[in-house]
Amino acid sequence: MYTTMHPAEFASLAKWAQKTQRSPLQEMLFAAAKPEIISFAMGLPAPELFPVEGVMKAAEQALRDDSRTLQYGPPYQPLKRHIVRLMAKRNVICREEQIFITTGAQQGMNLLARLLLDPGGTVLTERLIYTGFKQVIDPYEPRVLSVPTDPQTGIDIGAVASILSRGARPAFIYAISSGHNPLAVSLTEAKRSRMVELARQYRIPIIEDDPYGFLNYEDAALPPLRAYDDQWVFYVGSFSKILTPALRVGWLVVPESLMPKVSVVKEASDIDTNTFTQRIIASFLELEDINTHLSMLRREYRARRDVMAQALRESFPAEAKWEIPDHGVFFWVELPHGMDAQSLLASALKRERVAFIPGHAFNVELSNEATNCMRLNYSHSNPELIREGIGRLGKLTREALNRKI
Amino acid sequence: MYTTMHPAEFASLAKWAQKTQRSPLQEMLFAAAKPEIISFAMGLPAPELFPVEGVMKAAEQALRDDSRTLQYGPPYQPLKRHIVRLMAKRNVICREEQIFITTGAQQGMNLLARLLLDPGGTVLTERLIYTGFKQVIDPYEPRVLSVPTDPQTGIDIGAVASILSRGARPAFIYAISSGHNPLAVSLTEAKRSRMVELARQYRIPIIEDDPYGFLNYEDAALPPLRAYDDQWVFYVGSFSKILTPALRVGWLVVPESLMPKVSVVKEASDIDTNTFTQRIIASFLELEDINTHLSMLRREYRARRDVMAQALRESFPAEAKWEIPDHGVFFWVELPHGMDAQSLLASALKRERVAFIPGHAFNVELSNEATNCMRLNYSHSNPELIREGIGRLGKLTREALNRKI
Repeated sequence: MYTTMHPAEFASLAKWAQKTQRSPLQEMLFAAAKPEIISFAMGLPAPELFPVEGVMKAAEQALRDDSRTLQYGPPYQPLKRHIVRLMAKRNVICREEQIFITTGAQQGMNLLARLLLDPGGTVLTERLIYTGFKQVIDPYEPRVLSVPTDPQTGIDIGAVASILSRGARPAFIYAISSGHNPLAVSLTEAKRSRMVELARQYRIPIIEDDPYGFLNYEDAALPPLRAYDDQWVFYVGSFSKILTPALRVGWLVVPESLMPKVSVVKEASDIDTNTFTQRIIASFLELEDINTHLSMLRREYRARRDVMAQALRESFPAEAKWEIPDHGVFFWVELPHGMDAQSLLASALKRERVAFIPGHAFNVELSNEATNCMRLNYSHSNPELIREGIGRLGKLTREALNRKI
Repeated sequence: MYTTMHPAEFASLAKWAQKTQRSPLQEMLFAAAKPEIISFAMGLPAPELFPVEGVMKAAEQALRDDSRTLQYGPPYQPLKRHIVRLMAKRNVICREEQIFITTGAQQGMNLLARLLLDPGGTVLTERLIYTGFKQVIDPYEPRVLSVPTDPQTGIDIGAVASILSRGARPAFIYAISSGHNPLAVSLTEAKRSRMVELARQYRIPIIEDDPYGFLNYEDAALPPLRAYDDQWVFYVGSFSKILTPALRVGWLVVPESLMPKVSVVKEASDIDTNTFTQRIIASFLELEDINTHLSMLRREYRARRDVMAQALRESFPAEAKWEIPDHGVFFWVELPHGMDAQSLLASALKRERVAFIPGHAFNVELSNEATNCMRLNYSHSNPELIREGIGRLGKLTREALNRKI
């Protein structure tokens, strides 16, 4: 008989995997999954805004039209045509030959990291960044060069320029230009131009992660970096936040010359992207008006954003700071220094039944930065729950601050 | 202005990616996609056997039941329950806690390779093996130890034992125990026991890839390796060949202690497995009798197998050799030595409009092994097309042989 061992005891577990653990986001997902918890933790879209009837009709059409709907298949060309049109709404001029369809944006990032990053290689990004990006690069045990981010204008371009001018040559720069996760900021126009100039000058590709670019709440939304350069910006897009996440379809916009290589990595990863859901999305975009759908989402999420801003003003301590996000689904709230968002979360879950993600979870390197910050999602809960949940969280935060003072 | 460059000119393309190319399977997929070609190339299931109505009903039920069907979500527990029952049909006793749901079997392999294999690490497998496996390990630039396979009894266990006894400690052994791809052989019972004994003795996990295990055509099908050991065999299963590939759902059966690590790698890869299609499969398995469906598939594919065997006997040169497969979707045909299946394919596509995969494409290392062999799929074409296509291919092969003699 053989006794059950902990996997770390396998001689053959890869080195990086021996030290890896569940991410804070995964822990949160489980903690916040209880119905009695008001959760501002995950970046979930509002399920009541999903176009269920439209998806149903599109699914029926896709299944009735063609037996290839349930077969393995090459990327669905009509969907690429729709994506080209969608990108044009953001001032990105691209061709179908530059569109690569992926199993969501997360896979898109993975495919690009696989192609660009050697084990032990170097990447450049912001100190506080989407945790899923850290998960993508962790297995490469990379050297991470990181720069600060200004809460009003985005990534510190001077710091990027300085790192590159001193000779660093990262495999790529990872950036979220609109609706930053977690910092809720969008890059200014001047910084967009400068970013792309640096990429060209030093011949370093930028991976532009843009899940929230279509969720803009002000009229004068800036185009993504990809609109400024078609050679050095590799764009990562997704239907998860603008249609539904469960279809698991995203896309890359990359130079056509890169396609054969991306295809190899994609086939190795999961053969092909779900033919059924690709065709559902294409049918949906035929049958429905995406502009109407996007306008509805912007209106609803803008309203939720405004409700959260109001609730924050009413309930949070006067010392707390935040900006009003012009894109995306998050507020980034900075509490007075010395306050510990992690222990605040423990009380919030236990006493107030409210969840959020403490800021330090977004550190790309081991660091104590942002221990006094919290990321709050406003897309998933309805306005009433937002008011209630922010009210409870504000009360808790004020009490914690008073105990400190 | 910046001119467009070939991606190999990016300083930052990862080393392995600079030399990678489209796989032979991908090239074939494109070549064989024309409707006038009779294709025995890919391992595609028969689209006319897809349960389209059942999927439609299941999709409607999943969408009407629960708005979470279109949301991000944790693995769908009712689907795990069904998989436990499905595995029990193969004499595998497992618990829901040991089931990990994946975006198809290909992703399952990827997740395990990520966890087990260090860059430059060692793997042990057969000389001729599924090309998708080679694609999975290529980015690790691994040392590959490979052993021959007997066309009637499967992997050369003596060679495996000898490699391990000489001190090699691969990260894992990769094996296809039933309906080998491409060699169409199933391991004997004695070899199954011995494989698992070796894994235990040397504490080396086996990744058992089993897409065809449920497609058995003889009554006395042997259980997978996972039935012999629950600690050292990591089982990779899939709905692609038994339901439809387009839903992109597969599963792992792994020790429960490995789950937290697998979850991390999965989330990094594509966040979660398609909630919609997971729920479609669970609804399908509620609404329909999977045994009836599997019996139908076995009956239809067995008939196609028999038609192909008959056509091979009638049309192929007497010197050609093959075994009748008891599982899966392929014949492996060995032509007389000196014949070149690659150039035969060129003529077959051009003159006879028939596609197949030349054997040498399945070499896990650079090698000239199996240049005289071909892999022929019998699941995708109907019996009439099988007769017609094998007739044409046989004629071409006899002519080529006569020119040689």
